[in-house]
Amino acid sequence: MPNFSIDQHTSAQFNAELEEARKNLMEMGGIVEQQIEIALKSLIDVDIELAEKTIKMDKEVNKMEVKIDKETTQILAKRHPAATDLRFIISVSKTVNDLERIGDEASKIAQQSIELSKDGAGPQGYVELRHIGEKVREMVQASLDAFARLDTDAAFEVLQQDKKVDLEYNTAVRTLVTKMMEDPRTITRAINVLWSLRAFERIGDHARNIAMNVIYLVKGKDVRHKKLEKIEETLNK
Amino acid sequence: MPNFSIDQHTSAQFNAELEEARKNLMEMGGIVEQQIEIALKSLIDVDIELAEKTIKMDKEVNKMEVKIDKETTQILAKRHPAATDLRFIISVSKTVNDLERIGDEASKIAQQSIELSKDGAGPQGYVELRHIGEKVREMVQASLDAFARLDTDAAFEVLQQDKKVDLEYNTAVRTLVTKMMEDPRTITRAINVLWSLRAFERIGDHARNIAMNVIYLVKGKDVRHKKLEKIEETLNK
Repeated sequence: MPNFSIDQHTSAQFNAELEEARKNLMEMGGIVEQQIEIALKSLIDVDIELAEKTIKMDKEVNKMEVKIDKETTQILAKRHPAATDLRFIISVSKTVNDLERIGDEASKIAQQSIELSKDGAGPQGYVELRHIGEKVREMVQASLDAFARLDTDAAFEVLQQDKKVDLEYNTAVRTLVTKMMEDPRTITRAINVLWSLRAFERIGDHARNIAMNVIYLVKGKDVRHKKLEKIEETLNK
Repeated sequence: MPNFSIDQHTSAQFNAELEEARKNLMEMGGIVEQQIEIALKSLIDVDIELAEKTIKMDKEVNKMEVKIDKETTQILAKRHPAATDLRFIISVSKTVNDLERIGDEASKIAQQSIELSKDGAGPQGYVELRHIGEKVREMVQASLDAFARLDTDAAFEVLQQDKKVDLEYNTAVRTLVTKMMEDPRTITRAINVLWSLRAFERIGDHARNIAMNVIYLVKGKDVRHKKLEKIEETLNK
């Protein structure tokens, strides 16, 4: 963990505990990234096995959430972290929460793949799905990389990406609704695509939250609910 | 705060800080409850003014989130809370997070009211909306009451309610999709109702999370991702 204060602790045990929390967070992040990838593939290929795998992985993600939350609580109780260490624990804890919710959204997407598989495949709306799905997977990856490298510039890029994804999502929903009106026989399938799009859009929001946690960790500033320009100012100070 | 350990602190200042956090949490909860009520009314009455009021209130909710998070972080840094005090701080922090997300969902509902108002009112799907909306508002209220009174039985009831709401939500969505297929002219409006239903269902999930925070606070047990029967066993121990 470069540029980070954990090396200066007198207690080697404390260092080890912080490093363990960081390691577990990154491991959880890796599983969640995989979940998004598999969920997206299950949609595009209408592959039920992959969908079931995504849902199964969510159990693992939930266990990691409980485990890491327990670890960070113990660190708070025993070590009384202050300054950067405290911000680190708080950021880990918030990020774990976002990762768990991303896992939930990936499961919901997998559930939609299963529903879609029931009435045969059709490419309607899938171009947008694939595009937005890949984009938010990259955002999650980028936000976790930013966390690992304490890179606020990379974190800020994720915030910018999220703005774009929100716009693309709105366009995709509008297109889908228009198609539904043109051909009402596709309504059931279109609703499944709609829920999947929504889940991907939510994943993008969680990646944005993780990026904000990175900024809080590094700069000590809570930038939630602030406009991008204001956040940029904070970063350049 | 009856049955709670804050009375035993040697530092009157520490007591005052915990009490302040509790007070602010409840104040935030009150605003969010009101937000749900107004958002629901804005939908039913297709009242744009109320919708705009809901969205405006969200700014207040966001400010409270940042404020309370800052307070709890300061308590962690200065007071090194342990045992129940630490669980109290963690529960407040998690509950604040859920309340903020409820506020977001209320805003999304208000946004749908504004969309619905554009093409004139229609009662389609509103019976379910009103029913589910009122139910989740009660759940949020009950979860906050359970927090204030440290009442795990009341918290458990919220978990049970959430199961019921999820079932009702699924039925409502199916009904709505059937109606869309029968009369495709209603698609745009039905999609707005669908998003509103989803938002209410999510609010129910957050009420459930708050109830789980209460159980964690009082019993020291993390019951997330556990089945209701298992949670009931934990409470009877």
